Amino acid sequence: MSKYLLPRLNALDPYVPGEQPQDRRYIKLNTNESPFAPSPRVLAALDTEAVGRMNLYPDPIARVLRETIATEYGLTPDNVFVGNGSDEVLGFAFMAYADETRGATIPDVSYGFYRVYAQLYRVTPTIVPLNADFTLPVERFLAQHQLVAIANPNAPTSLALAYGDVERIVAGNPDSIVLMDEAYIDFGGETCLPLLAQYPNLLIVRTYSKSRSLAGGRLGYALASPAIIEDLNRIKNSFHPYNINTLTMLAGIEAMRDRPYFKACVQGIQAERARSTQALRALGFTVLDSAANFLFASPPGMDGRTYYEKLKARGVLVRFLSQPTLENYVRITVGSPEQMRALLDATAQILGEGNL
Amino acid sequence: MSKYLLPRLNALDPYVPGEQPQDRRYIKLNTNESPFAPSPRVLAALDTEAVGRMNLYPDPIARVLRETIATEYGLTPDNVFVGNGSDEVLGFAFMAYADETRGATIPDVSYGFYRVYAQLYRVTPTIVPLNADFTLPVERFLAQHQLVAIANPNAPTSLALAYGDVERIVAGNPDSIVLMDEAYIDFGGETCLPLLAQYPNLLIVRTYSKSRSLAGGRLGYALASPAIIEDLNRIKNSFHPYNINTLTMLAGIEAMRDRPYFKACVQGIQAERARSTQALRALGFTVLDSAANFLFASPPGMDGRTYYEKLKARGVLVRFLSQPTLENYVRITVGSPEQMRALLDATAQILGEGNL
Repeated sequence: MSKYLLPRLNALDPYVPGEQPQDRRYIKLNTNESPFAPSPRVLAALDTEAVGRMNLYPDPIARVLRETIATEYGLTPDNVFVGNGSDEVLGFAFMAYADETRGATIPDVSYGFYRVYAQLYRVTPTIVPLNADFTLPVERFLAQHQLVAIANPNAPTSLALAYGDVERIVAGNPDSIVLMDEAYIDFGGETCLPLLAQYPNLLIVRTYSKSRSLAGGRLGYALASPAIIEDLNRIKNSFHPYNINTLTMLAGIEAMRDRPYFKACVQGIQAERARSTQALRALGFTVLDSAANFLFASPPGMDGRTYYEKLKARGVLVRFLSQPTLENYVRITVGSPEQMRALLDATAQILGEGNL
Repeated sequence: MSKYLLPRLNALDPYVPGEQPQDRRYIKLNTNESPFAPSPRVLAALDTEAVGRMNLYPDPIARVLRETIATEYGLTPDNVFVGNGSDEVLGFAFMAYADETRGATIPDVSYGFYRVYAQLYRVTPTIVPLNADFTLPVERFLAQHQLVAIANPNAPTSLALAYGDVERIVAGNPDSIVLMDEAYIDFGGETCLPLLAQYPNLLIVRTYSKSRSLAGGRLGYALASPAIIEDLNRIKNSFHPYNINTLTMLAGIEAMRDRPYFKACVQGIQAERARSTQALRALGFTVLDSAANFLFASPPGMDGRTYYEKLKARGVLVRFLSQPTLENYVRITVGSPEQMRALLDATAQILGEGNL
């Protein structure tokens, strides 16, 4: 870094995305992408005519996209904010609601970016350990008087929160924002969307990267009360007003409209998740009951890092997170049947080796 | 806004982008877009196969795009940072280099976003008035000991800085970053790129939105010393690592590689700029010598707002900026010959009216 960087930013500990090694072709089960291509409607919409109009700025208020999302969820466009991936939405939300005067409460094991935003925005976070079984100690997220950020289902644990527990947390923090990061909600958990009508402090964050097969498009959104959406727009318009490019906007409209394709993809992943969970358990793994598009799994007789490394040597990438309570686990994206077959074959080999 | 928003953000005065009214079809000369479609190579690259891979995350380090930009400018990839529009690059730069402990020096008439970033990041900016002829008082930008941000050519004045003046400013601030915003440099000004080798405090910001016909793609970049690029990456990776979507990355590679098309577009705009300048001057306008893809023009016998409103009533949008020293001027994008013909016809009508 340069000598000009603000001194307090020297200590930043940026997020490390899942590795993308270039040394060989891997079966990538480490970044929770969808194994399915985007909807055929997306492919049809992004035609030469659409690309040919890229000399013009996109609509800075993303009117049609916000209307489309609102319609899908029975809301109005003033309940919807869109961002350059849900990371940007999360980034703006932390910028709007937390700093050195008002902190943030987050679980110790969750999406790693919450801690990074805290650092970036001078927040001293209140970090709450999960229970030993990786469930959330709900009572420790009540009456925080500061931003509360929780992923449901949680990553990397794959566990969903009960609807009643989410409501307890939202109702239990009337004077502060409760950010529910529902990046993985379509794969199993119960959305807290119905709470929106009742709780003006609820901020739901979603992404197109997982269940909508558009990780490459960078599109996330927030669903919340109009006042919260106005806050996020205020930040966005003080940062960059044209945050969603033209083609991603079109892709987001069509992916949301193609409900049958979306459902088929989600069901395909759920079915593969069930098969893979069963197969890994049959091999002696501990696998948590996943409500997401990934498995949180602990191999028999070895720690997570060893398993991760042995898989990588066999061309299969999974995610190992070097946090103390996670050392026996890896996070495995639920990929295509072929990808999961390759994972299971490599795993059987690895376990077989151990028995020699 | 909500009651949860951090109190210091209540006072934010966000940037207002050029209007995009939906009541009728306008001839849009208000946001400095290119009248030319993106390069045919961009159209060819963004095919169904590319769209079909959007379920996968983009390369978070944008390797090929950064290599392509570096090659074009005789640099190495570690001299290049890419952002979701140059607004994001500017936003990250202000975040990295200015806050309440280290300010920023900016001209009073320049890209409006510099002031907005200052507000967002708690900076009390040093605002330096331009000279009466809209030139930059160079000596007032020396020895600032804080971030210096200047657009060259400047917007909305369209005036370029002499190379020697840029060097004086960069050399005159050895202990702080000099950010040269070269959004419009391809249309006329002299780039300060050759200074990069000598000055580790120089940060050049560029955009694909103007001369590369990709405003809809949202792509900007920074050229600077590796240490500065590392600073920007540190901020980016603490905000959102996957900031450039897959298709924009491909578009950026192809638009940069298609040098003949780029040159033809720039020359077309320069030729139209010369014709329009002459035609407006013949009608009695004061038109500054533009080094950009827009004209800064003052109509005879009426103020800028009146002219803007009369043009809008005739279906032609230009930009009026309600700042004290700019009240007699409007900013007019140099569009296609047909668009400029329409502007001139409407203008002749408006001036004719005044003589009735």
